[in-house]
Amino acid sequence: MVPEVSRLAYTSRSAFRRVLAPFSMPRQKAPDNPAGRLSLISRHLAPVYPINTPYTVERIPDTIDTSLLPKNQTRTLSTTTIKMSQPPHATLLIPGPIEFDDAVLQSMSHFSESHVSPSFVATFGETLSMLRKLFQSTDSSAQPFVLSGSGTLGWDLVASNLVEAGEDVLVLGTGYFSDGFADCLRVYGANVTELKAPVGTKPTLAEVEKALSEKKYKAITVTHVDTSTGVLSELKDLSALVHKVSPDTLIIVDGVCSVACEEIDFDAWGLDGVVTASQKAIGCPAGLSISFFSGRAMKAVENRKTPPASYFASMKNWTPIMKNYEAKKPSYFATPSPQLVHALHTALSQILAKPVTERFAGHKAASDKIKKAISDLGLKQIAAKPDEQAHGMTAIYLPENVKGADLLPILAKKGVVFAGGIHKEIAIKYIRFGHMGVSVLDPNRGDVDKAINALKEGLAELGYKA
Amino acid sequence: MVPEVSRLAYTSRSAFRRVLAPFSMPRQKAPDNPAGRLSLISRHLAPVYPINTPYTVERIPDTIDTSLLPKNQTRTLSTTTIKMSQPPHATLLIPGPIEFDDAVLQSMSHFSESHVSPSFVATFGETLSMLRKLFQSTDSSAQPFVLSGSGTLGWDLVASNLVEAGEDVLVLGTGYFSDGFADCLRVYGANVTELKAPVGTKPTLAEVEKALSEKKYKAITVTHVDTSTGVLSELKDLSALVHKVSPDTLIIVDGVCSVACEEIDFDAWGLDGVVTASQKAIGCPAGLSISFFSGRAMKAVENRKTPPASYFASMKNWTPIMKNYEAKKPSYFATPSPQLVHALHTALSQILAKPVTERFAGHKAASDKIKKAISDLGLKQIAAKPDEQAHGMTAIYLPENVKGADLLPILAKKGVVFAGGIHKEIAIKYIRFGHMGVSVLDPNRGDVDKAINALKEGLAELGYKA
Repeated sequence: MVPEVSRLAYTSRSAFRRVLAPFSMPRQKAPDNPAGRLSLISRHLAPVYPINTPYTVERIPDTIDTSLLPKNQTRTLSTTTIKMSQPPHATLLIPGPIEFDDAVLQSMSHFSESHVSPSFVATFGETLSMLRKLFQSTDSSAQPFVLSGSGTLGWDLVASNLVEAGEDVLVLGTGYFSDGFADCLRVYGANVTELKAPVGTKPTLAEVEKALSEKKYKAITVTHVDTSTGVLSELKDLSALVHKVSPDTLIIVDGVCSVACEEIDFDAWGLDGVVTASQKAIGCPAGLSISFFSGRAMKAVENRKTPPASYFASMKNWTPIMKNYEAKKPSYFATPSPQLVHALHTALSQILAKPVTERFAGHKAASDKIKKAISDLGLKQIAAKPDEQAHGMTAIYLPENVKGADLLPILAKKGVVFAGGIHKEIAIKYIRFGHMGVSVLDPNRGDVDKAINALKEGLAELGYKA
Repeated sequence: MVPEVSRLAYTSRSAFRRVLAPFSMPRQKAPDNPAGRLSLISRHLAPVYPINTPYTVERIPDTIDTSLLPKNQTRTLSTTTIKMSQPPHATLLIPGPIEFDDAVLQSMSHFSESHVSPSFVATFGETLSMLRKLFQSTDSSAQPFVLSGSGTLGWDLVASNLVEAGEDVLVLGTGYFSDGFADCLRVYGANVTELKAPVGTKPTLAEVEKALSEKKYKAITVTHVDTSTGVLSELKDLSALVHKVSPDTLIIVDGVCSVACEEIDFDAWGLDGVVTASQKAIGCPAGLSISFFSGRAMKAVENRKTPPASYFASMKNWTPIMKNYEAKKPSYFATPSPQLVHALHTALSQILAKPVTERFAGHKAASDKIKKAISDLGLKQIAAKPDEQAHGMTAIYLPENVKGADLLPILAKKGVVFAGGIHKEIAIKYIRFGHMGVSVLDPNRGDVDKAINALKEGLAELGYKA
């Protein structure tokens, strides 16, 4: 691990100089208009800017003597001995929230810190830098965002910043969640075309190519894994196609149920945005909207003809803040959640302790095992084609005479919580099994075997024979 | 305490019946349009509605056998013995986030639960009901909301739901945060008039009356305590005035730095909305936007001519969900944060263990003591008039030759973290001392005395003599 305290102490002294130096400079009145106020924030990035702005003054707590910080609640990797252990509880195997590691939950109860303290700013900054690695991105013009909110807030980020009212967006329809993204886009005035596939499949590349040739789209959205069906959308070839036939179209991915369990090679695949949430394969409790945008997407926000159509979800408001945090400079637009950010830091540290490709392979191996067991049981998946099956969840059609409302309570009594169906056309006909994070990667847990056995036994108890 | 497990088990059985009963009814395809989809959610409230909707099917995990739930991580009041204790750290006395109680932080590391499990639904429902008590409201047409987000999201709730583009809003200007509220209102198209008072004061009732007589305003906003100045705005007489001279105008309060430390008698005072955050006097870590709206405000949302101007902050999307949770029925629009909601439940349980009036009196007593100490030190407050001084924070002008950048690190070394100034006109001339929650109400902590002594010593070390 990084020698925590000494590094923070250095940050603190350097921050101390930044705070003191400009005190002799002429004060400058902050402008009254919002753009001006935000421009003050962004100028944080230039250390020569005078301090007398609401935001820069918030730097003063930088000067806290970090040697006072306790050493026994610093960030810990799972390899470190953690004293906390969770009370026994049914294993949560729904497609998010997932089971959390002890160290992640321990980070949730971090003592109270100022959102502009050097220790928290360092934690937040490192968290943003780690997201770049999760997305395998080295393009410094790309920008990570971590905001307090549900995953759904990511749709607002896209709809109110990347698209302007009246612009056309092509939504690839794979289920419940692509419908939601379309709804959100319409709220902010986008002209949405939905290219819908039958339940359990995704639009073909030929259909996408045809749609793109008929209209000029500002953006195309794809739900990487639609949590309602477990359908996986392939991103690499899709993105290549869009770049070929409609090079100006931004490629936006809803990665809520895919980030950290399905491979995403952000730069190499030429993606423009991925929005996700904390509580799925990333393995951090719910409450954070996490997103990553390309330099091209950031330019689109900058070059808007109209201001962003939301305030809390405005990327113009948040970009300078995220840049500051990553540069280990405190700044303020709205108070983040230090505890959730600590937990995300712990979760990302655990993820990045090994190559991410190993993580994706681990999820694939567990998924293959589960899919084989499902098939051996004589059951079918909503996603029929193997190359359209997600690796972090499985949506399973129930046998004809078995009802979810009978089976799920039996599974729960066996200590395994699955989810019911959610796709409106087939909701009562299937169940969903989430297999992400520690439940598949920690070999000591045995969650997958427990779940498969519970499913076999539960179905047998209801009279089903494979 | 409520006999937890048996009550939950009952909820579960009754939910089980709700799930099973409609299975024999004809399936109904959910409509494709957003309004129709949301209408499906709201129909959850009618138990006769068929189950085959995305949302109702999410009820299935209701049937988890709650006797499986562990008993050692249920909700605990501060009177219960809690084993956890926080590592030593500098006492955070900024105007939010504040110091948190052990039991609240313990709730943050609750093991993972489904957001639609009966135990979590019960916790969320009770949390919403407790908010009614915090606002001293018994009007069943009033509606509490708890969303994942920063306090700032409350501004979006107001600006995108209660006001339509082109409508006039009067913003009472008391500092940095009223400016922010005005910015947010403008983003969603409101026509904003700011009635600004000089630094350290608030607009007078006569000025408000004059402004209201000049234009018909859809809403008036007031920052109950402006965290940038510590100026307290009196609500009771203000609301009476608005009801008298402009009875159709909605009265909206930014209560981020006032809820749970300043009295708010929501029904009696005729307020229409209070928006706040979790991390200040409520004493729960940051990450939740908490708000409370009158029946009249809810009607204004219902009767909009245009749809709400945001998606994640749409009250039309969230209202049925909040009503369902409070009725202990699971439903889904976006995933809430179970851990933060558990922590809020614990914090509200602690608050409501005593009459709220005692809590307000406790904050006033501590504030009086602090203000006297400040005055005895020969220091002045930004809020000069005693009846305009907040009771949960004090903004203190520094002596002429003392700089915040020198004083704050000295205080930090003494184990007390204060905040710098934030009001743009006077930022480097003052510091802010937050005194909310356990730091003033738990007599065993001694935080207030420690802070006053540190301030005295720190000023003396910098050569200041009272």
